[in-house]
Amino acid sequence: MIKPRMREELYINLNPLQRGGIVPAEARKTALAYVDGYSTCDYCPGTLHLMKKPPIQDFLKEVAEFLNMNTAILTHGCREAKLIIMRSITTPRQTIVVDSNKHYTTQVAAELAGLEMVEVPNSGYPNFAIKPEDYANTIEQVKKKTGEPPALGLLTHVDWLYGNLVDAAAVGEICQEYGVPFLLNAAYSSGRMPIDGNLLRADFITCSGHKSWAAGAGTVGIIAMKKEWEKKIMRPSGHYKVKPLELLGCTTRGTSALTLMASFPRVKERIKNWSEEVEKARWFSAQMESLGGIRQLGEKPHCHDLLRFETPLLNRIAQRHKRRGYYLYEELRERKIVGIKPGRTKGLDLSTYQLKKEQMSYVIDNFNDIVNKLSGRN
Amino acid sequence: MIKPRMREELYINLNPLQRGGIVPAEARKTALAYVDGYSTCDYCPGTLHLMKKPPIQDFLKEVAEFLNMNTAILTHGCREAKLIIMRSITTPRQTIVVDSNKHYTTQVAAELAGLEMVEVPNSGYPNFAIKPEDYANTIEQVKKKTGEPPALGLLTHVDWLYGNLVDAAAVGEICQEYGVPFLLNAAYSSGRMPIDGNLLRADFITCSGHKSWAAGAGTVGIIAMKKEWEKKIMRPSGHYKVKPLELLGCTTRGTSALTLMASFPRVKERIKNWSEEVEKARWFSAQMESLGGIRQLGEKPHCHDLLRFETPLLNRIAQRHKRRGYYLYEELRERKIVGIKPGRTKGLDLSTYQLKKEQMSYVIDNFNDIVNKLSGRN
Repeated sequence: MIKPRMREELYINLNPLQRGGIVPAEARKTALAYVDGYSTCDYCPGTLHLMKKPPIQDFLKEVAEFLNMNTAILTHGCREAKLIIMRSITTPRQTIVVDSNKHYTTQVAAELAGLEMVEVPNSGYPNFAIKPEDYANTIEQVKKKTGEPPALGLLTHVDWLYGNLVDAAAVGEICQEYGVPFLLNAAYSSGRMPIDGNLLRADFITCSGHKSWAAGAGTVGIIAMKKEWEKKIMRPSGHYKVKPLELLGCTTRGTSALTLMASFPRVKERIKNWSEEVEKARWFSAQMESLGGIRQLGEKPHCHDLLRFETPLLNRIAQRHKRRGYYLYEELRERKIVGIKPGRTKGLDLSTYQLKKEQMSYVIDNFNDIVNKLSGRN
Repeated sequence: MIKPRMREELYINLNPLQRGGIVPAEARKTALAYVDGYSTCDYCPGTLHLMKKPPIQDFLKEVAEFLNMNTAILTHGCREAKLIIMRSITTPRQTIVVDSNKHYTTQVAAELAGLEMVEVPNSGYPNFAIKPEDYANTIEQVKKKTGEPPALGLLTHVDWLYGNLVDAAAVGEICQEYGVPFLLNAAYSSGRMPIDGNLLRADFITCSGHKSWAAGAGTVGIIAMKKEWEKKIMRPSGHYKVKPLELLGCTTRGTSALTLMASFPRVKERIKNWSEEVEKARWFSAQMESLGGIRQLGEKPHCHDLLRFETPLLNRIAQRHKRRGYYLYEELRERKIVGIKPGRTKGLDLSTYQLKKEQMSYVIDNFNDIVNKLSGRN
């Protein structure tokens, strides 16, 4: 027997990986109605992206419009989306340019595609900011070294660690000037905030359904692209004309795609409240800092719900506590707050996305309580 | 609003793709409890296959034992499993040997891995049988042509079209003699019938959760392997030692894996009834043939629930019917029987897997009725 997971029902979950992927009630019903194997394939037209019933084809059109791109397809996840693009438009041993705040899967995908990767540096402690103009410098370096522009410029729109939002339009403009295809990894931005791929001059946008589109039931990602890339990305198998080679015919054949579809109306609504989400994150950050001995890293004022703090205050307590670094996780858990890495007190990573103001106040009050109780301040 | 899918509740579903992937009630509960994005990652140890809570690591050990192999890992699906193996143990432009009844994804995976593929012929109409000894001939041909043994021998244990069960142990023995790694594609066998990978001399077994292990909620596959291949298949990224390169760190991060786990106790039980399933398929085949003008293709007596019939009787009716080939689909649907390809009457593909005897009788009676009503036999 597998124990049911009741995290969202019983706790306030601050896990930065999970807050954007909570599936709403109406999509849960869909998940259950499509849980059987190959349930999307009742009316198979030969490949997933052309499916009319359930209306996957129409959904993908809407997604492309939503991101202001020309074509959208489903993938198993965002990492798989990046790999598909890399394999389709580069050849092994070519060089690509990537921000140094990249997700590890960007590096692993480049490695599997046999690519060299050159990083655009960040500004270092405490902001770790990516400056768009550094893309120009790095592209120049690559040109000097290899004799040709990089095969791809990739920007992590919002990085997983600091939650820094980079000026993607500026990076897009630089890539365009140098004739470098521009891939915007929007795993933590699309589905949370409005994205206009055309305005950002993106050739490709990769998205994570389970990270930021309120989808789940496994994994599901999206590639949105400009029309001119469709032929390369969707090139068919030489043996089966209806089967895209890079997708091995079809990718995510089931509930994962359906929860993404069922949550989409909700996602279209929720991005309209993005400025509120940013305000909430800023409020939370300020409250945490007001505890003293806690500092938010990354961009300030912050423009995203992902927050990283350095927390010498919490770490000092750990040094004298019999449970060492685990005290914080345990104290919070007792207070029905989870999503903080057990054992870690030097820093905190969390997200405030879609938390209610009262929930955030409750979290702050409890941090305050724990600190007062254990630091001997009271 | 996405319309709920009620196929299994309202109809008898004969779809050969779907009968082995119907998710039992207890696994449906698990699916719902884990539907949120990254729900498997609450206690992440760095990579999916080492996860202790939910107990993915223990489950994978049990799966390896169940198939009498050394190691099992999760993949997005069976096609992805084949690609991972091909990419890990071959180099582009090498030649592999494959049965001619292969699934299309075998060919597409080989194409994406840049491999040449040489086919072991089948015996042609009406049995389309793969003879194990032809693997020896084909391997010899490859050796003569390329100067080396093929880089991989792949056998489709039970093919998707005729449902022929091939003597895998004999193919395994031949591969071993020639020093060719042996991949058994068990998409339609493992999870339905007992499989002893050691006895079959398999280096790799690939499985489809959504096809034959009562799993769903997206897609999920398995690679089971001999210990000696673990290092190649699981080779880590050069940058992140805990992240297997071919898996891009982790594959199916969610409900798909959990339904597979939740259904596993049921799967372990159901394979014990395999001989009954074979008996049922034979009975059904004989009943269909007794209608006259219908002939089961493939192996006879049949050893699997996947059945292909040629049906000149049904096709003759189509030629005079105002709905042409669609009459059959429509007549069956009206009688609450689905899973037959709309418009097709030259042949029928279906599965009897886990149908009750009464359901099969009901299907036969209705075929009989339809034929009597429309052929003018009564």
